[in-house]
Amino acid sequence: MSLMMREISEQPDALARTLRAERGHAREFERFARRQKFKMIVLVARGTSDNAALFGRYLLELTTGIPVSLCAPSIYTLYHARLDLKQTLMVGISQSGESTDVNLVLQSGRRQGAYTVGITNETRSTMAGIVDDVFTVRAGRQRSVAATKTYTGQLLALYLIAGGLGPAIRLDDVARIPGWVERALTLRRPLEELVERYRYMRQAVVVARGLNYASAFEFALKLMETCYIVAERFSSADFLHGPIAMVERDLPIFLFHPPGPCRPTLSSLARRLRRMRAETVLFTSRGVPLPPATRAIRIPADIPEIYTPIPYIVPGQIFAEQLAAAKGLNPDKPRFLQVITRTI
Amino acid sequence: MSLMMREISEQPDALARTLRAERGHAREFERFARRQKFKMIVLVARGTSDNAALFGRYLLELTTGIPVSLCAPSIYTLYHARLDLKQTLMVGISQSGESTDVNLVLQSGRRQGAYTVGITNETRSTMAGIVDDVFTVRAGRQRSVAATKTYTGQLLALYLIAGGLGPAIRLDDVARIPGWVERALTLRRPLEELVERYRYMRQAVVVARGLNYASAFEFALKLMETCYIVAERFSSADFLHGPIAMVERDLPIFLFHPPGPCRPTLSSLARRLRRMRAETVLFTSRGVPLPPATRAIRIPADIPEIYTPIPYIVPGQIFAEQLAAAKGLNPDKPRFLQVITRTI
Repeated sequence: MSLMMREISEQPDALARTLRAERGHAREFERFARRQKFKMIVLVARGTSDNAALFGRYLLELTTGIPVSLCAPSIYTLYHARLDLKQTLMVGISQSGESTDVNLVLQSGRRQGAYTVGITNETRSTMAGIVDDVFTVRAGRQRSVAATKTYTGQLLALYLIAGGLGPAIRLDDVARIPGWVERALTLRRPLEELVERYRYMRQAVVVARGLNYASAFEFALKLMETCYIVAERFSSADFLHGPIAMVERDLPIFLFHPPGPCRPTLSSLARRLRRMRAETVLFTSRGVPLPPATRAIRIPADIPEIYTPIPYIVPGQIFAEQLAAAKGLNPDKPRFLQVITRTI
Repeated sequence: MSLMMREISEQPDALARTLRAERGHAREFERFARRQKFKMIVLVARGTSDNAALFGRYLLELTTGIPVSLCAPSIYTLYHARLDLKQTLMVGISQSGESTDVNLVLQSGRRQGAYTVGITNETRSTMAGIVDDVFTVRAGRQRSVAATKTYTGQLLALYLIAGGLGPAIRLDDVARIPGWVERALTLRRPLEELVERYRYMRQAVVVARGLNYASAFEFALKLMETCYIVAERFSSADFLHGPIAMVERDLPIFLFHPPGPCRPTLSSLARRLRRMRAETVLFTSRGVPLPPATRAIRIPADIPEIYTPIPYIVPGQIFAEQLAAAKGLNPDKPRFLQVITRTI
């Protein structure tokens, strides 16, 4: 079994462990946040962690009503701009805690008045030493180059932060996520058959909307890293503003299609794509009525939309790992990559 | 000549006209903004206009020190969240002023306390009727489906807004932009030869950093719309966090390589890509020392970095138009697209 598949399979345990260990801390953060009255949230990350930040951007704005900005690190690290960050919560996300630019932004943000929180796997990392507070992802050491268990662990930490900032996220509901991930893992066998169809796929588009927009970015990144597929990612609305012109029979479109308020617009896009004779593949779950699609990958569970992003990325991770194998590639040895990437 | 090329060529006039007509208005906005003391800026747009917003995200944060957030429209239009937008400047950007979701966000933002500004080509549009203030892009009617002169006009309006919010942008400098665009237009002949090499290109990556990050998105969108090329876009830092694994001899990498603080990191990426035997194409200008590259497209002018994003997109627009022609496609009739796209 590849390291990547082993880490994919470890996710229910890793999530449950992180939740157990950070529950008390989440309560403390809640008491602190209530006094602070943050007016703005800035999220800063790179790579897979930046996809976690993209999820956080939706989750935090939706559940707290506090406007969220995804940081452009170069503004701090290359242009050295000074921003007014009073009453701002700045959250840095990095698996290793050694992402040079993310750490520079956190240091600069702190000087400019922000309260800084780190989400990292490594309690003894540089990041953990420079922030005001740390949420630790207890995923165990990441040995696969392609991040899986650390990504879902970062999402979990963002639920804990959202729960501290407002009443919409309840820890008892968050505690159900590991069980949903268990269900998603049962798709391993059917996906092993399904990926055969995509052995010669060289390019793809991944589309989503809202809370799962980040899932589109993360699935596309796994396809790029492990299968060397040129995988574009769009919100369903942006896809209609130009990129839809690319659609051809040989450009498959993967859609994240959970229950919830984004579903009608995604269903309508899926129907339109089928009329255009495009190949469409849906990530969805039990009980969700489906538009016509070439293939549907259904997680055997009924999951409220707000908690779908963790279980929904799991079949995407499995798909990428198995497709790499079907292509004769080693998902544990992507070309040109290391576990820790340092950029400024 | 295609409508698209005609509109590309109209840009110096359109920009000069917009600047002349909006100069007085920009001064009024400056007086108003000084009293308001905005604490945050939210930008909202779709498609090409969203690429203009991405430029605005960097320009406004860099030159004003006010944190900027790129709006996720679904949070307003599908999830109906309520955000606290007091002391917030919300800027909506839409060529037609009829983008349903952008208008819904502006209405909702205004109710939640934001001061709303529209940037549009159409003074009698829905958008112009619902915002507190309008910057009008005097580009003349856009008849090409692929937006060119309206995009650069939107960037110009963002310079005017930045000039109103802080001292870094001076209108006398902005007034030099139409001249730089004239210089960029002289590249039409050399580009006509260059595109021959890319006749069979089916996928590409576009990389940039900082102020020209938006240029990467906009050039990639033109390649998707008019040439049906699957064109990915990345910041040079994010590209190293995974996607670099896709690089192959047949996946060309286009880099925006202006002068300024982002240049060293882009040069270093270009050198690394050449060592990997990737094809690299640089958009750059006179006087910029170049790393090894397969091809360089040099604008014959010395342009301070902060004013590069308008002249730098021009060779990208020309490249897309001419490559479409070389591929036997009609750049004025992209499949499946209209000038106005309505999404929610």
